[in-house]
Amino acid sequence: MHRFPLRVRYADTDRMGFAYYGNYMRWFEIGRAEMMRSLGTSYREIEESGVSLPVVEASCRYRKPARYDDAIVIETAVADLGRASVEFAYRVVREGDGELLATGRTQHCFLAPDGRPGRAPEGLAALLARAPKAGAS
Amino acid sequence: MHRFPLRVRYADTDRMGFAYYGNYMRWFEIGRAEMMRSLGTSYREIEESGVSLPVVEASCRYRKPARYDDAIVIETAVADLGRASVEFAYRVVREGDGELLATGRTQHCFLAPDGRPGRAPEGLAALLARAPKAGAS
Amino acid sequence: MHRFPLRVRYADTDRMGFAYYGNYMRWFEIGRAEMMRSLGTSYREIEESGVSLPVVEASCRYRKPARYDDAIVIETAVADLGRASVEFAYRVVREGDGELLATGRTQHCFLAPDGRPGRAPEGLAALLARAPKAGAS
Amino acid sequence: MHRFPLRVRYADTDRMGFAYYGNYMRWFEIGRAEMMRSLGTSYREIEESGVSLPVVEASCRYRKPARYDDAIVIETAVADLGRASVEFAYRVVREGDGELLATGRTQHCFLAPDGRPGRAPEGLAALLARAPKAGAS
Repeated sequence: MHRFPLRVRYADTDRMGFAYYGNYMRWFEIGRAEMMRSLGTSYREIEESGVSLPVVEASCRYRKPARYDDAIVIETAVADLGRASVEFAYRVVREGDGELLATGRTQHCFLAPDGRPGRAPEGLAALLARAPKAGAS
Repeated sequence: MHRFPLRVRYADTDRMGFAYYGNYMRWFEIGRAEMMRSLGTSYREIEESGVSLPVVEASCRYRKPARYDDAIVIETAVADLGRASVEFAYRVVREGDGELLATGRTQHCFLAPDGRPGRAPEGLAALLARAPKAGAS
Repeated sequence: MHRFPLRVRYADTDRMGFAYYGNYMRWFEIGRAEMMRSLGTSYREIEESGVSLPVVEASCRYRKPARYDDAIVIETAVADLGRASVEFAYRVVREGDGELLATGRTQHCFLAPDGRPGRAPEGLAALLARAPKAGAS
Repeated sequence: MHRFPLRVRYADTDRMGFAYYGNYMRWFEIGRAEMMRSLGTSYREIEESGVSLPVVEASCRYRKPARYDDAIVIETAVADLGRASVEFAYRVVREGDGELLATGRTQHCFLAPDGRPGRAPEGLAALLARAPKAGAS
């Protein structure tokens, strides 16, 4: 899986002392953006070409808490690539001991410039086909 | 289901002009906190009694975008109440036309004062048993 | 000053147990949006008419912490209304005992539909002139 | 000034297409945490030693918008170091062309383990005295 390092910030924590559960969605966004960048294009460029990948479904399983200032790694892969949708899989691991903190998925459709869901443009489909793979959910 | 009104704020939106997908988790938190308050206790009081309900799993299905300044309603119910866990179900609807924008689930365990998962204390179990019910997932 | 009630959410807190300092900016946004709504127009309608009021400067003085589940009130007024800018003043108070938790200011320019700063359109200037007043900073 | 690179994320943007004004406070937090780390200690270690540095006052001047996926740098320095307080100064610059996007300040007191404001512990005062300096406000 593609790996991107992050650090848990004070802004991410809640009064339990752990990262707030909603913030993992932000980390997933960062994971998939950086995975696409590593494949040679940025999500900004994709949007500028007129295509967007809105999230249709998202889920996260929280296994161990992420604590303030923890160095973590967001691991991202493509779990499923269809004609009209793509699913990413994520793992949040603690750097150092590699402890698995969370796993997640996001499913996206492809929105054409006219705002309608449709097929992925060829270039984008080819790019996503080169991404690291995870087993389908 | 218990209903709590909210408004989509500028802070919630992203450059697509819609509410950012991670922010629905915050709305779900508000929904379950206000549902518990409507049953006669607050989540703050529950935590002060030593019990906490960390999120073990969360998911959201995004059906229609929520736009800036939309008046929305968070509908919350208990989907499943077990000895050692509780699952809440949510619906995000647009006020006025009642359009369904999103549905979601969060699953929680009960953490005892010693930090170990365990059974829900009797009072809390009784309170959750009186909550509005949704079909199990 | 215009008053709008809110509640401190888990998502707002950090591991110190208080509302994270950056979240007050969100509360200020809510305060000014609701003050404008109370005057008869929404900020969404203002933007749809082509004018926007980006924040040029913002400040906050934190006096007492806001804690999880505290019921608070955002008080908002116009501190200064110029031809090309408007300054809002805010007070965050705890409901019940009225304890002052924070004070703040935001300064905004008026952006015309062409993206250039300029004078406030007449309708907007008239609306802001009817707003509750606070002393200039 | 100490420099720390960041990227503007989708989660940071609002429907104007720019980074939401409240998120700069998060960036300032990251800036000062990383500056302290570069001096040899982490803010987590400082808190674990019993001292905390809550924000007493914060301000930001927004000069140019930060856009989605912009690579930015948070520059941080100590603007004023007193016996009982410390003020940090920040500059947010766009990487590449070095355009200045925002400047800001945060003022902090030193909270002793008993929760009372007081003098900085010697070790922390010495550490902050070694920090890059900015002119006082």
